[in-house]
Amino acid sequence: MIKIGIVGGTGYTGVELLRLLAQHPHAELIAITSRKEVGMPVAELFPSLRTRVNLAFSDPAQAPLQDCDVVFFATPHGVAMEQARALLDKGVKVIDLAADFRLQDPAEFERWYKMPHSCTDLLSEAVYGLPEVHREAIRSARLIGLPGCYPTAVQLGYLPVLEQAGLIDPQSLIADCKSGVSGAGRKAEVNTLFSETSDNFKAYGVSGHRHWPEITQGLKNIMAKAGQPASDQQALAMAFVPHLTPMIRGIHATLYARLTPKGMATDMQALYEARYASEPFVDVMPAGSMPETRSVRASNFMRIAVHRPPVRSGEASNLLCILVVEDNLVKGASGQAVQVMNLMFNLPETTGLSLVPVLP
Amino acid sequence: MIKIGIVGGTGYTGVELLRLLAQHPHAELIAITSRKEVGMPVAELFPSLRTRVNLAFSDPAQAPLQDCDVVFFATPHGVAMEQARALLDKGVKVIDLAADFRLQDPAEFERWYKMPHSCTDLLSEAVYGLPEVHREAIRSARLIGLPGCYPTAVQLGYLPVLEQAGLIDPQSLIADCKSGVSGAGRKAEVNTLFSETSDNFKAYGVSGHRHWPEITQGLKNIMAKAGQPASDQQALAMAFVPHLTPMIRGIHATLYARLTPKGMATDMQALYEARYASEPFVDVMPAGSMPETRSVRASNFMRIAVHRPPVRSGEASNLLCILVVEDNLVKGASGQAVQVMNLMFNLPETTGLSLVPVLP
Amino acid sequence: MIKIGIVGGTGYTGVELLRLLAQHPHAELIAITSRKEVGMPVAELFPSLRTRVNLAFSDPAQAPLQDCDVVFFATPHGVAMEQARALLDKGVKVIDLAADFRLQDPAEFERWYKMPHSCTDLLSEAVYGLPEVHREAIRSARLIGLPGCYPTAVQLGYLPVLEQAGLIDPQSLIADCKSGVSGAGRKAEVNTLFSETSDNFKAYGVSGHRHWPEITQGLKNIMAKAGQPASDQQALAMAFVPHLTPMIRGIHATLYARLTPKGMATDMQALYEARYASEPFVDVMPAGSMPETRSVRASNFMRIAVHRPPVRSGEASNLLCILVVEDNLVKGASGQAVQVMNLMFNLPETTGLSLVPVLP
Amino acid sequence: MIKIGIVGGTGYTGVELLRLLAQHPHAELIAITSRKEVGMPVAELFPSLRTRVNLAFSDPAQAPLQDCDVVFFATPHGVAMEQARALLDKGVKVIDLAADFRLQDPAEFERWYKMPHSCTDLLSEAVYGLPEVHREAIRSARLIGLPGCYPTAVQLGYLPVLEQAGLIDPQSLIADCKSGVSGAGRKAEVNTLFSETSDNFKAYGVSGHRHWPEITQGLKNIMAKAGQPASDQQALAMAFVPHLTPMIRGIHATLYARLTPKGMATDMQALYEARYASEPFVDVMPAGSMPETRSVRASNFMRIAVHRPPVRSGEASNLLCILVVEDNLVKGASGQAVQVMNLMFNLPETTGLSLVPVLP
Repeated sequence: MIKIGIVGGTGYTGVELLRLLAQHPHAELIAITSRKEVGMPVAELFPSLRTRVNLAFSDPAQAPLQDCDVVFFATPHGVAMEQARALLDKGVKVIDLAADFRLQDPAEFERWYKMPHSCTDLLSEAVYGLPEVHREAIRSARLIGLPGCYPTAVQLGYLPVLEQAGLIDPQSLIADCKSGVSGAGRKAEVNTLFSETSDNFKAYGVSGHRHWPEITQGLKNIMAKAGQPASDQQALAMAFVPHLTPMIRGIHATLYARLTPKGMATDMQALYEARYASEPFVDVMPAGSMPETRSVRASNFMRIAVHRPPVRSGEASNLLCILVVEDNLVKGASGQAVQVMNLMFNLPETTGLSLVPVLP
Repeated sequence: MIKIGIVGGTGYTGVELLRLLAQHPHAELIAITSRKEVGMPVAELFPSLRTRVNLAFSDPAQAPLQDCDVVFFATPHGVAMEQARALLDKGVKVIDLAADFRLQDPAEFERWYKMPHSCTDLLSEAVYGLPEVHREAIRSARLIGLPGCYPTAVQLGYLPVLEQAGLIDPQSLIADCKSGVSGAGRKAEVNTLFSETSDNFKAYGVSGHRHWPEITQGLKNIMAKAGQPASDQQALAMAFVPHLTPMIRGIHATLYARLTPKGMATDMQALYEARYASEPFVDVMPAGSMPETRSVRASNFMRIAVHRPPVRSGEASNLLCILVVEDNLVKGASGQAVQVMNLMFNLPETTGLSLVPVLP
Repeated sequence: MIKIGIVGGTGYTGVELLRLLAQHPHAELIAITSRKEVGMPVAELFPSLRTRVNLAFSDPAQAPLQDCDVVFFATPHGVAMEQARALLDKGVKVIDLAADFRLQDPAEFERWYKMPHSCTDLLSEAVYGLPEVHREAIRSARLIGLPGCYPTAVQLGYLPVLEQAGLIDPQSLIADCKSGVSGAGRKAEVNTLFSETSDNFKAYGVSGHRHWPEITQGLKNIMAKAGQPASDQQALAMAFVPHLTPMIRGIHATLYARLTPKGMATDMQALYEARYASEPFVDVMPAGSMPETRSVRASNFMRIAVHRPPVRSGEASNLLCILVVEDNLVKGASGQAVQVMNLMFNLPETTGLSLVPVLP
Repeated sequence: MIKIGIVGGTGYTGVELLRLLAQHPHAELIAITSRKEVGMPVAELFPSLRTRVNLAFSDPAQAPLQDCDVVFFATPHGVAMEQARALLDKGVKVIDLAADFRLQDPAEFERWYKMPHSCTDLLSEAVYGLPEVHREAIRSARLIGLPGCYPTAVQLGYLPVLEQAGLIDPQSLIADCKSGVSGAGRKAEVNTLFSETSDNFKAYGVSGHRHWPEITQGLKNIMAKAGQPASDQQALAMAFVPHLTPMIRGIHATLYARLTPKGMATDMQALYEARYASEPFVDVMPAGSMPETRSVRASNFMRIAVHRPPVRSGEASNLLCILVVEDNLVKGASGQAVQVMNLMFNLPETTGLSLVPVLP
């Protein structure tokens, strides 16, 4: 059994981690901490876990985190970077679901998260926890910066066309993304009240969202890993426009890119199917499909469909449109965290993650 | 492995059965039929099942149902009673999720379902598939009439006070129930369109709903089984007022009954906890709890809380109020069907049903 | 033009008042205050009011409230009782949408609102702003305690049978009520986040809700006004069980009462139609109707239907079930406030309130 | 009073027309037809209209449509083109809310609507009912083809930059649009059931949607009217990707276009504000705004915000992103129909359309 600690388990990624780990055959939950809820049984805060999780929240200062094999940080940004060093020194692996170890450049971190990075020496060691890109590095990592929910969807959506040279204009990327409200977390805020978000739709963060530099970095890394020339990586330009959607879970990324003549001559369906043929959690749907977020609800699956919507009557379209759906709390957060843990502990990657999506 | 057939798998109880059976370690799905969708892969209609269910819908006339160990009917009312005899004769067990084998009196069936009962000889053999009441009979049954979604919640909510003599006035029962929209099924109807039911709430069936005679019959059977005098059973009077709620899954039953002086002197919390102590799927919550439907979403759990809301200032309340939540598609239908199947095939009752509720 | 001030306009009853007053032909908005949002244009906080409301929030201490003809308090409980005296002394009428002037007994106020009542001398002068009961007193009132949202629905639902002697057992009242989430206000709270309340249903306040004493007081006043004997008023016992429903606006009250033989012999449909024949905002629907909350959405209408659901097969029902719908922010709050204002200023009662409900 | 007939009033655009006309000071509703609901009072089908609309549905063959001043067709596509000629010949003006008179080229109509156009002679006379573009032509028109819901949002969103020469690359347009479910109409269909669309998000019609040719035609007409060279009109290429959003009302169009150097040097905020300064229903929001669909709910307003989301770190963005919100049933359909009627009958354009949006 893998001995597991969770720091900050009162948010949605925390309760989702608990749901998944409670059904994981090799997970043994040792401690879960919350400064605010010390002593409260987890199942009192989240009755869905009654009879399945018997722990109570413990004080972060008291919790036996150093006795764990791995500690997940389901905390606000800035917590993991304070505590990772001590845990790693004791031989405890660390998976941070927040942003502390996502951006490689500490200046970028400071710019977007408005706080200095207090643990820059570990940044270079940290592995970006996107198994479809960094599987081997993850296996041997001690410290993981888990991707954000949007970045997971956008990177895996663009990956096949970026790994090949010259299929798209790298300056033409537009990621129009839609997220369910749980992506905003379980914080008391007027903006995410039911009466503010239900029966409503809006864009947000159009002038600059924290996930934009993360995605850009990731896309460039994908190109670099695939051996694309540095000039192409430099050329990459992507707009990211997120929208808040009145649903609890789910991200739908509608991704656009202009095809080059070479790209127009390429069978995109075949390209995507081939690239993801052996990926256990990425499902390339048949040509013409339009994936629904609910088709992955509560599961670690991502589904992708590739389209070329018409742009001028009677002409072949030069626009690639990639539709990606994931559950923001699973493949976009806690499920990916478990997938990464499985890799780090040499378990089959799908262990504990074979739950069938809940539809309707 | 239990060889399983499903007749009529295109509705919500059908896809939910598929979700549960796909995760059941002893279930082997042999055939699933649909007159309308012959040849269509199940996973094309329900992409949530991609990679998990590889069958296509087959013609009911052609499907190898007689080779199955058990056949589930997830059909409209009136189908199972036409086909059950032939299956039973071949040694196939039958679990009907529709109403054909719920009401013991064929005249009552005709009155409420507006069709003659074509299989009255099997009615007396059929067992009502509510394990918490009829567990032993289910174990040895060949033919199950599975309870409706509301009847499951209402019967198990009232059960502890009806099994004891003289705790409540049997004429005072009021079941004010609220259901998610999936309870109305996956039929093309204006009444259950998103734009008709979202951001809206209404009662329906107030002048008489089909589940009312089923619940009444069930409550009387509970009293009879517990040895209550026939006069008390005769006295039973219950109003049932269902409401349509803008959520997909979930039933919340708010049950009322007037306490007798003996009932007022009884520790209801203790009574309920004792009665359900060994039931794997009925969770009596701590005193003061108010269960949420989402706390059982996508799981076979039912949660119950017992209250005595104030009725007159400064006086002890003589009103018992029982709050019950279940997922109408799981404990209220397909999950209960699997629970019953487990009993019929001598498997541990919780096999395949240990999925943790999905929250949020 | 009536010069109008609003104290505390950043909540849902505040913005709803603004919506209604912006369409009222005799309303002139002079000032709207908010301690937190001083200087912010109202239309910046609520873009729905762009081009229609040009005021900015002002400091309560600076606002020219004493120059108004009437001041509405759309504040938390406890604010109006501090400021009403000074305004009344200047000849300004006061309509409090909070609870400060609802309960006649200051001890009850303290018990339920956990604060002493600082303005008990005005309590006896304050008129309860339910026009269908207190129309004449409202016309000449200086100070109004506006009913809560639930109390409006429950009192008007029971009113016709309580005004007549001996129709129902006064000890048998059960008000099972369901409210949209906007009833909880526009406060930053985890409990009313979208991801907590969407696709979910639950009861709350079962052990005692602040509207329970208000309703009980109101029902007794209705009986007293109709000349019922004191003993009957004393006998009145009512349970009130509210539930939170995943919709923005709307209250659905399902009201139960046991009929006496005299009540069973009474034509309830005719009784209700007669009682409300001349009420402009209370619509008694045809027999058999089941009103939907959306049928009154964004309007000041209330719709009522009267039923006798079956309780025992083959017998006439002795249970009266009254279904009531209202928009909790309009007839349940701000619309009723405008209706009351119209009465206080000798305008036709429906002035500015003839907006047609928004469906779908 | 304008005597008004409505053909086909049982859908959402029909009931919305009724809601608006019931509050219009110069509208007199003479007849409303429905083949299916002959004899049924309108207020029985739509209780929100009780006491406000006293008509019953009449047989289309019997209704006194020829006595009307104007007839609205709120019918499926293909009905208006059969009946418009006879009405026009009697001097009755016709406003078609369906697609019969939107596309100027009958071959395009046939291609997208899968039926021959039976009234091509009237096509050239028909005026496209978008007041912000064709106000003068509408004033004198007899026959109006009212724009679709998406086309209204997309055309008015792009209009200011298309009326000026050389601001954007005309080949770069991408309209990523999101609609509430009421846009799909009030037809009994599985796809728009609550349990299919709630808590879910998906794209649809990606390979070609009927509104795509309409929008393209409209954008070219805007360019032509503004005197752009034919070559630029020819060059126009636009992708249109609609998505289904779990809300009842509302369209959010997220519109993209690449700026030329001239466009990058242009103050887009000023351009949009200037263009729409005198438009009563188009509200250009302050720089940095992100309009919400609910800010126009149940009103004829459209709100627009202009952005340039970052595409490459440290560089000025060359991407224009226009956010547009409207209520698909009001400015996207029935409200625009009333606005057009006002113009046709020389009434102030805002008559009956000054309803304040409903928020929350």
